[in-house]
Amino acid sequence: MGMKSAAEQMAILRRGAVHIVHESELEERLRAGRPLRVKLGADPSAPDLHLGHTVVLDKLRQFQELGHTVIFLIGDFTGRIGDPTGRSEARKPLSEEEVRANAETYRAQVFKILDPQRTEVRFNSEWMDAMSSSELVRLCSHYTVARLLERDDFARRFRDGHPIHLHEFLYPLVQGYDSVALRADVEVGGTDQRFNLLVGREVQKAYGQPPQVVMTLPLLEGTDGIQKMSKSLGNAIAVTDPPDQMFGKIMSISDELMLRYYAVLTEEGAEEIRWRINSGRLHPMDAKKQLAQRIVERFWGAEEAGAARRRFEEHFQQRKIPAEHVKVHVVPAQRWERISLPHELVAAGVVSSTSEVRRLISQRAIRVDGTVWSEAVLPPGSGKTAVLVEVGKRRVVRLVRGRGRHRAPDCVKAGNDG
Amino acid sequence: MGMKSAAEQMAILRRGAVHIVHESELEERLRAGRPLRVKLGADPSAPDLHLGHTVVLDKLRQFQELGHTVIFLIGDFTGRIGDPTGRSEARKPLSEEEVRANAETYRAQVFKILDPQRTEVRFNSEWMDAMSSSELVRLCSHYTVARLLERDDFARRFRDGHPIHLHEFLYPLVQGYDSVALRADVEVGGTDQRFNLLVGREVQKAYGQPPQVVMTLPLLEGTDGIQKMSKSLGNAIAVTDPPDQMFGKIMSISDELMLRYYAVLTEEGAEEIRWRINSGRLHPMDAKKQLAQRIVERFWGAEEAGAARRRFEEHFQQRKIPAEHVKVHVVPAQRWERISLPHELVAAGVVSSTSEVRRLISQRAIRVDGTVWSEAVLPPGSGKTAVLVEVGKRRVVRLVRGRGRHRAPDCVKAGNDG
Repeated sequence: MGMKSAAEQMAILRRGAVHIVHESELEERLRAGRPLRVKLGADPSAPDLHLGHTVVLDKLRQFQELGHTVIFLIGDFTGRIGDPTGRSEARKPLSEEEVRANAETYRAQVFKILDPQRTEVRFNSEWMDAMSSSELVRLCSHYTVARLLERDDFARRFRDGHPIHLHEFLYPLVQGYDSVALRADVEVGGTDQRFNLLVGREVQKAYGQPPQVVMTLPLLEGTDGIQKMSKSLGNAIAVTDPPDQMFGKIMSISDELMLRYYAVLTEEGAEEIRWRINSGRLHPMDAKKQLAQRIVERFWGAEEAGAARRRFEEHFQQRKIPAEHVKVHVVPAQRWERISLPHELVAAGVVSSTSEVRRLISQRAIRVDGTVWSEAVLPPGSGKTAVLVEVGKRRVVRLVRGRGRHRAPDCVKAGNDG
Repeated sequence: MGMKSAAEQMAILRRGAVHIVHESELEERLRAGRPLRVKLGADPSAPDLHLGHTVVLDKLRQFQELGHTVIFLIGDFTGRIGDPTGRSEARKPLSEEEVRANAETYRAQVFKILDPQRTEVRFNSEWMDAMSSSELVRLCSHYTVARLLERDDFARRFRDGHPIHLHEFLYPLVQGYDSVALRADVEVGGTDQRFNLLVGREVQKAYGQPPQVVMTLPLLEGTDGIQKMSKSLGNAIAVTDPPDQMFGKIMSISDELMLRYYAVLTEEGAEEIRWRINSGRLHPMDAKKQLAQRIVERFWGAEEAGAARRRFEEHFQQRKIPAEHVKVHVVPAQRWERISLPHELVAAGVVSSTSEVRRLISQRAIRVDGTVWSEAVLPPGSGKTAVLVEVGKRRVVRLVRGRGRHRAPDCVKAGNDG
């Protein structure tokens, strides 16, 4: 396979990208005809890939198919430091063993999408551990305080009087220096990474390298349709979710979000699906099943995907539960370990009073994940982030684990087609 | 000599200090009865000590006389980095040899005041060179961006949209860490160092040490009476200035500034001198000579001081030039190399027109440092920062080299007694 022309490559690479800084630079590098070094940075603390990550990984896969090299960079230097202020549980320092273990998990997951033959997995401790403190001071001289305070989250925290600890200002520069050490031609990330990726351009210039091309890709909303997909928000579809769980989660999303998933996650045009639905040629339920099946197939193969679909249909449709009537109710994280069914079912608007719930429990009219449940308290079991609760034959609610601090909206109606 | 009581020591140490944070902590440490470690930080790039530095050094000498240890810390780590943005000439990186040479110069000069037996001379490269970049990141986590932006100069530059490069934020923290490495009990500095000294307290707390006591001392105005004394402003009296130069510079200051120098530089009360002058008991000219002689004596001994005084009197008074009529005129640095006498003498208000200056030059009526000058252009000669210009028998102006960028006030009237 010879390399495609720069113009042909541009047409492919541009597709789905939100920003490219700058297209002309990317085209120029493609014209040079050598394999480009395309960097993706990953945080070593959260190695469970979900569908949101696949948006970026699919773009990297395209680069590989066009003959370029992907550098999957694991930020273990910063990961091992964590958040020294100790304020953030999510950023507690990782040991070297934890980093290596997480890296292995990453590797297993990213190679479901990336081509291992064209992927370098690197760790930034390679160069950062060797960097002296005076070199780090010099690195810091290449960026100003005012420009760092332009980053959205810093600007907001500064304005609101919330502390920004000085080490947080160093991290974008370290990330930029990674691009120097890797001689990155391109760095790819979500739109929320735009600022950091642009810092990389400045740092490369300061170190005498041509600045990397920056490409950002859309962030995918989680199953709640509101927040960015994130494991810690409990709205993620992990690439390792078993087929039934993956299928069921996709079936629980709204029709509008389904169209968004079509647009971002598939090659199919969302506009065509929308048109076929609006013109009555395609039932939204079928469109959603088709999406779910396609996504499950990608990670588990055609056979598993077909089986997941059949099991879903048996469970819901043959028992006459229209999936579009499944409500989603977010249970705050602090209540998740011991869910009070009377409390949550009332909060979800599925049952009118807690005494009614208790009565239904005693009548064996409540099922949890298909099994009759006879207690008021429900421990979902370790690692589970969602349970399906059926109340009688008609009322169904999916209880989903919320995130730690912020309270999620109490109830999100999932199906809205009619 | 037994140690004085804590209360007696406090009475001595408190004298002349602007702030002590906190007196109670200082007294408590003094009560413990062990020799305290009293730190002074010095920038290795400007090793010429001037009278402004002696304010702090005298206080350190008091600590030593009370039995405490002074740590003279040379900031060679930051000195060797300099200003990596290259914007500041004054902060160009120093080589290791330059730092060592400057340190030797410092040593020779500070031991005119400090007791070498009770002084440790240290370099912060001892611990900073060994610090890893991850440890520097951790150090940065102990301070917030918002608090750094409270420092006067940072606040001003940020407000005015002038760049602050991120490495500048690291330096106060490095200085604070020096106090950790040295286990400083007290840090002393000019009032302009207050912010940085207080950062040291925070950093020590973060590293589990009791916070140092911070003591600030007044900044001394230079001979212009306006700006802080500084070699680069051309208004400094160096401790190495030869006796005549030192004497003459002190004689050129205003009477008001003379009282300030009495207050800050001598044990004598300025109030008493002021009272004696105002009540007609002491002529300001004699008060100034007494100050000049005392200061010269301190650095050159009684004999040299007396001789300097005699030479001054011969030169000025026997030639009937009342020194209090000497004007000081600041020549901007960019005009200093080739001073235009017609231009500057008119600007100084000494002669009314440039053609009048040319006529006086041709009449051999102008003397420079006592010698007839017959050219319009005057190159002051390398290293010189002031020249004395006499116009006829009555008009005298001291031309002083201004600093680089900012334009100094055109003319400062030095004598104002009548």
